Amino acid sequence: MIKIGGNVLDNEAKLASFLKDFASIQAPCMLVHGGGKIATRIGEQLGIESKYVEGRRITDDATLKLVTMVYGGLVNKQLVAQLQSLGCNAIGLTGADGNLLPANRRPVKTIDYGWVGDVRHNEVPGEKLQALLQMGLVPVFAPLTHDGQGHMLNTNADTIASSLAVALAGLYDVRLIYCFENKGVLLDVNDDHSVVRNMNPEVYESLKAAQKLFAGIIPKIDNAFDAMAKGVKEVLIGHAEDLLQNLTETTTGTLISKD
Amino acid sequence: MIKIGGNVLDNEAKLASFLKDFASIQAPCMLVHGGGKIATRIGEQLGIESKYVEGRRITDDATLKLVTMVYGGLVNKQLVAQLQSLGCNAIGLTGADGNLLPANRRPVKTIDYGWVGDVRHNEVPGEKLQALLQMGLVPVFAPLTHDGQGHMLNTNADTIASSLAVALAGLYDVRLIYCFENKGVLLDVNDDHSVVRNMNPEVYESLKAAQKLFAGIIPKIDNAFDAMAKGVKEVLIGHAEDLLQNLTETTTGTLISKD
Repeated sequence: MIKIGGNVLDNEAKLASFLKDFASIQAPCMLVHGGGKIATRIGEQLGIESKYVEGRRITDDATLKLVTMVYGGLVNKQLVAQLQSLGCNAIGLTGADGNLLPANRRPVKTIDYGWVGDVRHNEVPGEKLQALLQMGLVPVFAPLTHDGQGHMLNTNADTIASSLAVALAGLYDVRLIYCFENKGVLLDVNDDHSVVRNMNPEVYESLKAAQKLFAGIIPKIDNAFDAMAKGVKEVLIGHAEDLLQNLTETTTGTLISKD
Repeated sequence: MIKIGGNVLDNEAKLASFLKDFASIQAPCMLVHGGGKIATRIGEQLGIESKYVEGRRITDDATLKLVTMVYGGLVNKQLVAQLQSLGCNAIGLTGADGNLLPANRRPVKTIDYGWVGDVRHNEVPGEKLQALLQMGLVPVFAPLTHDGQGHMLNTNADTIASSLAVALAGLYDVRLIYCFENKGVLLDVNDDHSVVRNMNPEVYESLKAAQKLFAGIIPKIDNAFDAMAKGVKEVLIGHAEDLLQNLTETTTGTLISKD
């Protein structure tokens, strides 16, 4: 289970190189992509402003249409076409397709996030995902789900990746790999040599206590421990360029383990 | 195999009624949709002009992005989410997904149509489509294919519907239904009572000779005869509102037969 972030999608050369690596993987695998920057750019052209409440991005009606077009259409199908040209039998999906990721619209507590979905983790049908893999297909997921009442929902791509990984954990030994623009979890964000190569709960707590972790990485790590608590074998956070290396036993990124 | 045109997609109430009927179908089925009017509208907002050469619409780079977003994302996923809410296990696809509709970019003869695809009919994998149907899934196709070289291709929805119908004809008794805004093939376009209820090659030739058929319907009928020559059992052209009736033996539209 491999997730790529928006920065890789935004760079044609890096994306081509990443997809070539991805297409060469022989084991059953899936890809989850983001696409926020492309959506923001096309939204500007359409006069759809990104809306924020207390620093959180809100998905109003216009934004939902935008992300459904951009994530589910433009980005997803371009990735599928490129993977197909590399001999990888990709199939582009959202969580609505085949009801593969049942979700609820996030309830309003202090903030109304709009059309944002939270996956109902326990209801993701692992057997259906397995059936697609057994057909030789390589699912490529856009960060969208649906509410079962006729609406699409904007959904965090990291969460989709971990939900899919958990659903498959009873059927496969799953390694969940988050690919981004750093070598891994860094102690100094400007120094690629400062990668924390192995992280367990003890290391995590001590780094957090010492304030050595930058804010953006903390939800990713929490997500990782959560996925492992639910059966995922390994989680790795690493650079998109190091994908193939990080599929082996001699990883270059941050390998997260339960103990 | 059911195809719906842009006029139905454009009317919220008519679409909801059509989808309710479609979701109630018990037999294995697929849906193919258009979406040209919605693409034109969003294209205008994005400053993408519809380009024509000798009256034929051209798919340039910007238009390809537009239709990939609108057909493959917005229209396709909204249909899937609505069908899911009606208990129909829809899965939204393009011809790139799973390489279900291999195609070639249309060669330039007198006109360069741009990124327009012609399906390689003989290579559509009927068994893969059958495998999806056997999983209980209801494929919903956007009018897009790919060239196998990393590019999506804008593709005629009527042709996609007949290609899929032909591919399944060896595995099922296929009825191909084209749903649009008329009751069927009309002798007088302003009179719904002028439906040609049964059409065979003989009737077709005599109506053509007498110039009783309006120009737009002729490619649809040619398509129909072609699909039947390749094994499709029946083709019906009828009103979207009459879908359920047209699935029975007592059809209201134009039933096309080989003899």
